[in-house]
Amino acid sequence: MTRYVYQFEEGDGNDRARLGGKGAGLAEMSRIGLPVPPGFTITTEACNTYQRLNRVPDGLMDEVWTHLAKLEEKLDRRLGDTKRPLLVSVRSGAPISMPGMMDTVLNLGLNPDTTRGVAESTDNPRFAQDSYRRFIQMFGNVVMHMDHGRFEAILEEVKHRAQVKMDTELSESALIEVINGYKDLVWKETGQAFPDDPKVQLEMAILAVFDSWKNPRAIVYRRLNKIPEDLGTAVNVQSMVFGNMSVTSATGVLFTRNPNTGEPGMYGEYLTQAQGEDVVAGIRTPKSIDEMAVEMPKTHEELNQVCKLLENHYRDMQDIEFTVQEGVLYLLQTRGGKRTARASVKIAVDLAKDGTITPKEALLRQDPEQVQRLLYRQIDPGAHVEMLATGLPASPGAAFGKVVFTADEAEARGLAGEAVILVRPETTPDDIHGIVQAQGVLTSRGGMTSHAAIVARGMGKPAVTGCEAINISVVAEEFRVGDHVITKNTVITIDGASGRVMLGSVPTQEPELADEFTELLTWADREKRLGVYANADTPEDAAKARELGATGVGLCRTEHMFMGQDRLPVVQAMILAETLEDRQDALSQLLPMQQSDFYGILKAMDGLPVTIRLLDPPLHEFLPHIMETEEALSQAKQAHDEAAAEKFDAILRRTKSLFEFNPMLGFRGVRLGIVYPEIYAMQARAIFQAEADLLNEGGSPHVEVMIPLVGTPAELARMKTMVEEINHEVADERHQALPYQIGTMIEVPRAAIVAKGIAEHAEFFSMGTNDLTQTIFGYSRDDAESKFLPTYLAEKILTENPFMVLDREGVGRLIEWAVQEGRSVRPDLKVGICGEHGGDPTSIEFCHQAALNYVSCSPFRVPVARLAAAQAALRN
Amino acid sequence: MTRYVYQFEEGDGNDRARLGGKGAGLAEMSRIGLPVPPGFTITTEACNTYQRLNRVPDGLMDEVWTHLAKLEEKLDRRLGDTKRPLLVSVRSGAPISMPGMMDTVLNLGLNPDTTRGVAESTDNPRFAQDSYRRFIQMFGNVVMHMDHGRFEAILEEVKHRAQVKMDTELSESALIEVINGYKDLVWKETGQAFPDDPKVQLEMAILAVFDSWKNPRAIVYRRLNKIPEDLGTAVNVQSMVFGNMSVTSATGVLFTRNPNTGEPGMYGEYLTQAQGEDVVAGIRTPKSIDEMAVEMPKTHEELNQVCKLLENHYRDMQDIEFTVQEGVLYLLQTRGGKRTARASVKIAVDLAKDGTITPKEALLRQDPEQVQRLLYRQIDPGAHVEMLATGLPASPGAAFGKVVFTADEAEARGLAGEAVILVRPETTPDDIHGIVQAQGVLTSRGGMTSHAAIVARGMGKPAVTGCEAINISVVAEEFRVGDHVITKNTVITIDGASGRVMLGSVPTQEPELADEFTELLTWADREKRLGVYANADTPEDAAKARELGATGVGLCRTEHMFMGQDRLPVVQAMILAETLEDRQDALSQLLPMQQSDFYGILKAMDGLPVTIRLLDPPLHEFLPHIMETEEALSQAKQAHDEAAAEKFDAILRRTKSLFEFNPMLGFRGVRLGIVYPEIYAMQARAIFQAEADLLNEGGSPHVEVMIPLVGTPAELARMKTMVEEINHEVADERHQALPYQIGTMIEVPRAAIVAKGIAEHAEFFSMGTNDLTQTIFGYSRDDAESKFLPTYLAEKILTENPFMVLDREGVGRLIEWAVQEGRSVRPDLKVGICGEHGGDPTSIEFCHQAALNYVSCSPFRVPVARLAAAQAALRN
Repeated sequence: MTRYVYQFEEGDGNDRARLGGKGAGLAEMSRIGLPVPPGFTITTEACNTYQRLNRVPDGLMDEVWTHLAKLEEKLDRRLGDTKRPLLVSVRSGAPISMPGMMDTVLNLGLNPDTTRGVAESTDNPRFAQDSYRRFIQMFGNVVMHMDHGRFEAILEEVKHRAQVKMDTELSESALIEVINGYKDLVWKETGQAFPDDPKVQLEMAILAVFDSWKNPRAIVYRRLNKIPEDLGTAVNVQSMVFGNMSVTSATGVLFTRNPNTGEPGMYGEYLTQAQGEDVVAGIRTPKSIDEMAVEMPKTHEELNQVCKLLENHYRDMQDIEFTVQEGVLYLLQTRGGKRTARASVKIAVDLAKDGTITPKEALLRQDPEQVQRLLYRQIDPGAHVEMLATGLPASPGAAFGKVVFTADEAEARGLAGEAVILVRPETTPDDIHGIVQAQGVLTSRGGMTSHAAIVARGMGKPAVTGCEAINISVVAEEFRVGDHVITKNTVITIDGASGRVMLGSVPTQEPELADEFTELLTWADREKRLGVYANADTPEDAAKARELGATGVGLCRTEHMFMGQDRLPVVQAMILAETLEDRQDALSQLLPMQQSDFYGILKAMDGLPVTIRLLDPPLHEFLPHIMETEEALSQAKQAHDEAAAEKFDAILRRTKSLFEFNPMLGFRGVRLGIVYPEIYAMQARAIFQAEADLLNEGGSPHVEVMIPLVGTPAELARMKTMVEEINHEVADERHQALPYQIGTMIEVPRAAIVAKGIAEHAEFFSMGTNDLTQTIFGYSRDDAESKFLPTYLAEKILTENPFMVLDREGVGRLIEWAVQEGRSVRPDLKVGICGEHGGDPTSIEFCHQAALNYVSCSPFRVPVARLAAAQAALRN
Repeated sequence: MTRYVYQFEEGDGNDRARLGGKGAGLAEMSRIGLPVPPGFTITTEACNTYQRLNRVPDGLMDEVWTHLAKLEEKLDRRLGDTKRPLLVSVRSGAPISMPGMMDTVLNLGLNPDTTRGVAESTDNPRFAQDSYRRFIQMFGNVVMHMDHGRFEAILEEVKHRAQVKMDTELSESALIEVINGYKDLVWKETGQAFPDDPKVQLEMAILAVFDSWKNPRAIVYRRLNKIPEDLGTAVNVQSMVFGNMSVTSATGVLFTRNPNTGEPGMYGEYLTQAQGEDVVAGIRTPKSIDEMAVEMPKTHEELNQVCKLLENHYRDMQDIEFTVQEGVLYLLQTRGGKRTARASVKIAVDLAKDGTITPKEALLRQDPEQVQRLLYRQIDPGAHVEMLATGLPASPGAAFGKVVFTADEAEARGLAGEAVILVRPETTPDDIHGIVQAQGVLTSRGGMTSHAAIVARGMGKPAVTGCEAINISVVAEEFRVGDHVITKNTVITIDGASGRVMLGSVPTQEPELADEFTELLTWADREKRLGVYANADTPEDAAKARELGATGVGLCRTEHMFMGQDRLPVVQAMILAETLEDRQDALSQLLPMQQSDFYGILKAMDGLPVTIRLLDPPLHEFLPHIMETEEALSQAKQAHDEAAAEKFDAILRRTKSLFEFNPMLGFRGVRLGIVYPEIYAMQARAIFQAEADLLNEGGSPHVEVMIPLVGTPAELARMKTMVEEINHEVADERHQALPYQIGTMIEVPRAAIVAKGIAEHAEFFSMGTNDLTQTIFGYSRDDAESKFLPTYLAEKILTENPFMVLDREGVGRLIEWAVQEGRSVRPDLKVGICGEHGGDPTSIEFCHQAALNYVSCSPFRVPVARLAAAQAALRN
């Protein structure tokens, strides 16, 4: 026969599945000799069988009575005894904590006779009647499903008649009046008398706890928190202790360390002369646990010892419930305490340093996503906010400022020291100068890879994109959302971590990179096998990345360098060139600019590899929009400005000729390099000249030239030959060998499929998982995230957004294939990823398993990537 | 030692590689006893060794002299003998025919002494001098590289002085004057005397032929025709016969059957009293070979016998050169004759029917691409054309008509019986009614998969798209191209097979589907293992496809049904619906329309499978363009038409909300079905109701429901459940089982990668190779073909356009994977392809090799697909 009931000290403290979290904790504390009021646990199995059979499982109640008898013997009290009555609490306790979701009954065992017994044995008749009153109310509500408010009404009425305000002011006789009123209410509402037989009370309470597993709020909670339906709850029947018995009694809750900061030392609250529910009800303000050192020094010291013991035992910070009954300490619960990211890091590092856990355990205990938040300014979690709308969480961090609608104004006022938020329908390369000077960016269009999102993430600046609820009029300099009209200069706050847009300046918290965090990351570096590189397009980004622990640049995009205010006109001239000669002219103006860009990045990363991707985006991204140009052209014509008209006409013709239906799949990447080899040639020359400059100064640049969007071995072979020629030219000019590696981004499925052929020419592969995800799924990210992905996620067609978490079955499979094929012809092929997935912990675990060499992510994700890489190594 | 020289009768007639085509033919004819003037062949190996060493190979000339001696003995004539001089021709002959590319010398062996000998032995001094004159001119030009025109000038001068017009009118003495002039010229130009020694002449001529392998025009010809550079040419040294010796002498060229029509019987021309070059020079008009039956009946009969013998021997139609010398027939060459597609089919079928070849050989001898042209109207190859521009060959066929610029006008005038060509920047669903009534379509934008291209191909109507050289003003109703301004009503001709746009009405040729072709295709059906289905969206298309031999519809696109004039407003109402109820309203209007569409197609294909794809394109394709709507909105506002303004405003908002950056990768296919299940539900209901109707009438519909753009098993599972429910509903309503199959299109790489999971739910896969090619390469076809693909093909980065010829290494590999994975869980999984590749012969061969079940192509490609499928089966 299955055994359903265990005395606390019989239970296995690790068997949370059968005993529930609370039961396992009570068992464990009992076994190690802590002062736990005796009791027993009815297993989750009993609950599940009850649910399945829809009746009380055979033998369950017999077992309960047997264990009750043991309990009575232990305490020399009997349930229902009028001299030494046993009172118990009946509490639920699921394997996974569901705070407040299920039911608890205290003071069970009281009836008129036992109440009298309690009054006599405690010599405190008022306490006895108050306990009985509380019991009827709680039992009536929880077990008999009566409305809590009806009981409160009776209590209020008696208080009113007695002309008192507080429950504690009621006399014994007034309490008896309340009790009688409660009993009448029970009779009227349920048609039956309130049960006097304590055994009936106990059985009813146990079944009520079982039933509470299926109450609607518990079902919703489980769905929200992804807790399986079939776990069931255990039931803990525990002898009562009373924090409300006397002035030397108390009840409280504490953490063994500060759950906000992780600082060592108890952190909690208590109330004297109170039961647990009084703390929750907030009738009196609890005292800090520190006050207990003065008020109840012995208990305080005992708690201190208990905390140390529990921490040593559980090897983690604990969250404890306790009661002091007439100076004697009892523990009612212990569990791992919830904590902030900051506390999580500090606690784990402290525990590791004092030898309680190993550094590996300290690493494994961190949730990388939570840790990530340490690196960004956050909305104060306690702050009141007035929500305006929610967009896509495009770049984490919180910022507030005055709304402005043009990049020029953002730049001017930002430079003048004002905090502004740039609000645009979408941003373009023309807006970069404004983004740089704004506190954050808000757009009504575009997804997680829109221009605004990418640029903001690159700068570590908060951004909310695709906030379609707001209706922007750039002309009127206002936006509308719901009933609000937000005009220029209104202060708003954006939270790029959640996508929230709020009115006014909401308080934010500064990020801190505590010493413990730094220490934890050095431990991570010892464990991880993957290199962690950063995506960095500027010397500043590269320096930041290096500071955050990156050991290389995995992706240096050269196009952002083309977008500077000084460069764009030259880039446009290059694109508008109608002859090779004109294009060469423009390119030769760009050469020194690019050379100094590359020099700066190589210098910032001196001694570490820097992977420079040659120009990738379609050329039309550098030209103004067709409609803007048409506007400008018609204005120039009206003004009879023929020179301007000619210029705009040329731009318009070129823009139209570059128009693409699906730019994502268009004329970009190596396709530019094949059709306009002179562009890539200029970039290669700039790279090698920068390398030569740095070598001259005694630096050790590690140059990796990356050809983007290759789909056939022939493309790469062609570009490789050209880059090699230019390398030889510059080496000859500078009388110096200029070592470099050449490789490609694997961004289209075909590149992965024919990886063997490509690896013949490539010394490294960088998996461009953003584009790979787009092409493998056939999803344009911008379109998908605003159109159908939300439905797909809500309806569980997809379990994760594949742009956030690498899709192992599809994208991952092809990456594994590419790695295998590539290394079959070039065993030392270096492989990394440089998509957004490079900063996502589960994707990083995949990269580890797929035997990649490194991941590359935005500088601000480097710490989390180091941590995730270490966890991947430790887990696999 | 390698042997370099073979007497004709010693050679192996199959060894074209060593003897060249001409040498092998001469050898073969000699061996089977046909009257071939004796001679010998110097192998291609000699030529190649000569090229490699850059000198005459050791022993070559010794061998030549030995074989010359044999030849002299055989004929009892000696090279250089003054009594019985031997004259020879020296001709090149490569393994692959390169007509006119290399050199020939006739009458070699003449000098003043031998000329006298010829004069005496023929008793025809004028003939002797004329031959000598021709020899010097030809040798001087071909061997000594002198300008042909300088010789002609001397000839003209003598004719002028002699006051004659024709060469044949020149007297013996005048010819001697010419000869002396020629010799002086040679001396002046080359600094050496014209060689008198026939052996020197022969050696020089042989080396000149070797050298001619490397002449620039031969190199260009080989590059254009993909002939390898290392084949080399053989040299044939053959005793001369003279068609110009007397009135009973003649020379001619003939085909053993008519090379244009394939009709049996000799087809050719001859000239009496002439040498081969006279025919080429066109001085006299040759006579038809039929005249020979009267003029030289004995020779005519001999030729007839020779033709039969050669056809039987070579088992194919032959192209023959012959000379008659004083009534005696000599054969100088035989080779497989070039022929039109029509002749190719007829000849092969005729040969197979008379047992000369097998039906399998008849099938293998066809070039499917060439055969395809039989099915379209063509530009008369001999017609003079005035080119305007060249666009993309979007839909084959030729058409002419008056230029019109709107679909409405095209429809009105087309219906009125006028031939019009619809010219648009691009076409949209709104233009369909105009395309239907136009002879053809010309667009300045869009690629091979643009709307115009797809619609025109579907209708079998000529189209030229992406013709960027033309600048259309719809407002002015004209287009400009170069210096031309083409106004409305100007007649132009378009050739959709080549992309040519021509001025005026160029003569075209009607297609014919000869009986022989039909017969050949029935033979093909016996051999092929692949099914050939058609892509058909209407009952008319389906009927056409069935007539052309399709055994099913592999792709019935339902979206084109949405574009009819009567449907579009309802479709738009459905899209603009803001509530599910409104959408259901519109859908219930569409239901009967779709039902009758499906009924018609199922009926046309009764008894054969019809694969119906549920709605695929993004919804914005059914809405007007944003700019048009903005225009309409602002007009409505100006006119204070509030109802209209409200309508356009609603359309505008919806269109904007449906805007996509990359529609190809956007909100389409099953993504619509997941987000708006009611649309697919309506389509499923329409399908099953149509099936029930047809079953009721005793038909046997074979319904296959295809869910497009699936990338995860979950998508298909969800849609399958819904379709199944609707099937049960309709079956219940109609009291009838409604069998069907459900499957998916494999269009995104992920679907292929996770094919195993998808096959759990799919009874068939249809490989959507158009989209697969786009996503695997990361090419948007429209953009790629107008931007970088031309460069890629020109520079051999790609050897073929992957949208025309299936890319085996990339796309093919993933298809093979999908087939294997899919059949691993469902061995009877039916797999086909329905992209444009379904009609491409080499792609069809891939499908055969990859064990697909069928290919599906446009109705007009069905015959060629049947042929290609048979060839694939026969070759593999």
